[in-house]
Amino acid sequence: MSSTATYTVVGMTCGHCVRAVTEEVTGIPGVTDVQVDLASGAVTVTSDGPVDPSAVKAAVDEAGYELASS
Amino acid sequence: MSSTATYTVVGMTCGHCVRAVTEEVTGIPGVTDVQVDLASGAVTVTSDGPVDPSAVKAAVDEAGYELASS
Repeated sequence: MSSTATYTVVGMTCGHCVRAVTEEVTGIPGVTDVQVDLASGAVTVTSDGPVDPSAVKAAVDEAGYELASS
Repeated sequence: MSSTATYTVVGMTCGHCVRAVTEEVTGIPGVTDVQVDLASGAVTVTSDGPVDPSAVKAAVDEAGYELASS
């Protein structure tokens, strides 16, 4: 089953930031696709199944950014 | 003889940009040190001798940025 979730990341300013976030989130087990929109900060994560949001938060932190509080 | 020249680069927004510019300019033959100030865009290039400004312009372009027109 494929699962899609969208998060908002704050602090990305350029294409390098997008790449850093994409690489970290892509490394989460089960994740099959990551799409990042720089302007809005939207990060859409597609996976084989549900992904723990805390894993996404940790990956974004590792890249040097943070999730918008919601 | 050591030579130092300062250029202004526009378009850098984050530490990744600084790193990209630093790496490209460091690759110019004769360059021994590159210091980049993100806030001002100042790039200070130290070298064993004079460096052709067109080589710096090319390196900055390669990194994806441009020199301020002066």
